[in-house]
Amino acid sequence: MHEAKPLPSYLVQRYQGWKVTSYAENRAWYQKLATDGQHPRAMVISCCDSRVNVISMFGAEQGELFIHRNIANLVPPYQPDGKEHGTSAAIEYAVQVLKVAHLIVLGHSNCGGVQGCLNMCRGDAPELEGNHSFVGRWMDILRPKYDDVKDIGDEDTQLRALEKSSVMMSLENLMSFPWLADKVAEDTLTLHGLWVDISAGTLEFYDTQEARFRAV
Amino acid sequence: MHEAKPLPSYLVQRYQGWKVTSYAENRAWYQKLATDGQHPRAMVISCCDSRVNVISMFGAEQGELFIHRNIANLVPPYQPDGKEHGTSAAIEYAVQVLKVAHLIVLGHSNCGGVQGCLNMCRGDAPELEGNHSFVGRWMDILRPKYDDVKDIGDEDTQLRALEKSSVMMSLENLMSFPWLADKVAEDTLTLHGLWVDISAGTLEFYDTQEARFRAV
Amino acid sequence: MHEAKPLPSYLVQRYQGWKVTSYAENRAWYQKLATDGQHPRAMVISCCDSRVNVISMFGAEQGELFIHRNIANLVPPYQPDGKEHGTSAAIEYAVQVLKVAHLIVLGHSNCGGVQGCLNMCRGDAPELEGNHSFVGRWMDILRPKYDDVKDIGDEDTQLRALEKSSVMMSLENLMSFPWLADKVAEDTLTLHGLWVDISAGTLEFYDTQEARFRAV
Amino acid sequence: MHEAKPLPSYLVQRYQGWKVTSYAENRAWYQKLATDGQHPRAMVISCCDSRVNVISMFGAEQGELFIHRNIANLVPPYQPDGKEHGTSAAIEYAVQVLKVAHLIVLGHSNCGGVQGCLNMCRGDAPELEGNHSFVGRWMDILRPKYDDVKDIGDEDTQLRALEKSSVMMSLENLMSFPWLADKVAEDTLTLHGLWVDISAGTLEFYDTQEARFRAV
Repeated sequence: MHEAKPLPSYLVQRYQGWKVTSYAENRAWYQKLATDGQHPRAMVISCCDSRVNVISMFGAEQGELFIHRNIANLVPPYQPDGKEHGTSAAIEYAVQVLKVAHLIVLGHSNCGGVQGCLNMCRGDAPELEGNHSFVGRWMDILRPKYDDVKDIGDEDTQLRALEKSSVMMSLENLMSFPWLADKVAEDTLTLHGLWVDISAGTLEFYDTQEARFRAV
Repeated sequence: MHEAKPLPSYLVQRYQGWKVTSYAENRAWYQKLATDGQHPRAMVISCCDSRVNVISMFGAEQGELFIHRNIANLVPPYQPDGKEHGTSAAIEYAVQVLKVAHLIVLGHSNCGGVQGCLNMCRGDAPELEGNHSFVGRWMDILRPKYDDVKDIGDEDTQLRALEKSSVMMSLENLMSFPWLADKVAEDTLTLHGLWVDISAGTLEFYDTQEARFRAV
Repeated sequence: MHEAKPLPSYLVQRYQGWKVTSYAENRAWYQKLATDGQHPRAMVISCCDSRVNVISMFGAEQGELFIHRNIANLVPPYQPDGKEHGTSAAIEYAVQVLKVAHLIVLGHSNCGGVQGCLNMCRGDAPELEGNHSFVGRWMDILRPKYDDVKDIGDEDTQLRALEKSSVMMSLENLMSFPWLADKVAEDTLTLHGLWVDISAGTLEFYDTQEARFRAV
Repeated sequence: MHEAKPLPSYLVQRYQGWKVTSYAENRAWYQKLATDGQHPRAMVISCCDSRVNVISMFGAEQGELFIHRNIANLVPPYQPDGKEHGTSAAIEYAVQVLKVAHLIVLGHSNCGGVQGCLNMCRGDAPELEGNHSFVGRWMDILRPKYDDVKDIGDEDTQLRALEKSSVMMSLENLMSFPWLADKVAEDTLTLHGLWVDISAGTLEFYDTQEARFRAV
């Protein structure tokens, strides 16, 4: 059994502040959203990292973005094996039910999950090996990209490269979902790869023509 | 191969607005966050729904909340089987690496995922059956709670009850993670169950003493 | 009495973004526009529909287009009866004061106002009958064109035909304004009829020679 | 008969630019908007003035804002007399059919329509008197506010005051629409009054508590 506690009072206080300010000023909109349902234009897959706030970054407070957040913004390959797949379920709901127009994968600098993957691939992270490490097994999704980055520059350079590779890996795996690939082919869904530098606030997108990330 | 497109210009424009306002005024803090790493106080598990904005609701823009978002804010049971488990990986990272003090599960009204589960349990959603429905297999996590709600009131009442049950289910499954249960036992981690009404803006928490949700 | 509220904060945030980007880079031009007054080259009469953005479509951010938007881009006939006529006032200001060179009527696909007119003419929209329906009485302007479309093809075909007829109706009614007809006669003002397909992004213009709409 | 001309080539060229850039990058969204219909969050009533671009100012390219534009952003009083009332029809469609959450009246500096009203009220604009001036009869809507501004400061001060009064007049007249007042009373619709300075780019909102306009 769990022993859930009341919400810590610092969050109660902030919630009450939100209720009389942001909620109050958008009450009519919230009521409409509840009645008419959501019609988000885009799905964003970003990292759980507390320093990434995609809603603020895109000025999109309520109803605009359907957001899935997991470690290192990863999408696993299509695997209809009857097991539970949270990321695949979120993508299915966004694409098949909500019919979003854009699917955006947002990576970021200083990513702890990607750092763990780098350490693991180098053999420096025994704690991430074995069935008992969920982080390790999750980061296995990114392993195929390690070969692309292992010989370039210093550790910081490799980390940035692998962070961007995690965006690429997700974009590639997205295309393994047949109903998603169909929509991309018929141009009713577009894919986008982004990477944000937390410190500098700069945003880069993957340019397919030039086959590299560059500033928006 | 994927064919990633540049970011739609309306998002470029909004990003540029964010860069010179919100980012600019918090630049020193972002730089410190990048250098020193994140030290979030709490992890929140909430839904992907575009109408739920936990960051705004808790006045927590940068660095405070580690957030995992999936369909219906569900936590599957502990399964160290060597497969990828995105939700479990996020929990492991928050609890074991970041050592958050609070773990909050946030449910909400008008939840499409929970509605799908309700339909499925009643036999009204053949499209959610079978291995090809990721949403169906993901919502299987919540199935054990259907019996608790199937005989109460009308459909709306059942939906609300099942939305709150999804919070309870997640709290129960959280306790199946041994290292998490240890921390709860030694009081270095507290669990919290919340449910927000999108239309009314009201927030309820699970009160273990009274064994029911009530307003914060 | 009214109870005007402060601007919702999501719009405040976006406005602040605009102020430091788009406004900042065009500041000298805005100041000149304020000092010297506007000298738009064309007036556009388009629909209020949120999916039609004539400024973006014609790359015309500041000072170029004088734009009147109403339901279904309709112009009523010339009626100098001392009552308030918003559309006629906008046309008078553009033609007589600003002396625009072009007057463009822009229709569009999926028009809710024209759909309402179609329903009304078929007797399927009792809610649009009677003095209390402003939409119904406004769409009366288009009623004379119903006979031209009622026997052609299926409902979608009729809707598209009536959308284009609303452009024709407006062009015809424009010519009932004597000072406007004078300018057209002396070739100091030209009229243009357009229709844009929201989904396909294609633009058609009315070709007087061929007496039909065709792609630009 | 009208003699509509082909679209001037400078606009054809710009349209073609838009088609391969902005439209192309948002094609999936345009298709969804055409299929699912519009769900704009707000209606904006602004001026036809070519220097006011509410879409850009609020970073809202497609589908977000239902926009009516007329001379001096005026709303006439509720008059269900069976005549055509374009502004009232637009409001009815936004509030009753689209059920927008916010209704924003946006005034601006250097407004030619308001300047005409000021001249007319002073007796300096004989060309605006009589049934043949649509601009004059339209600006009659604002006449009741002249008394409030006629004794304050110089002409520029009076003009700014009357521009803001036109926002107030519209807000007051909006409340004369019974179904709109009902929605305001039940808090499913909020009203907002804004005024933008074209030269300085500053935006003010009407603060009901302080009974004056102040910077956002």
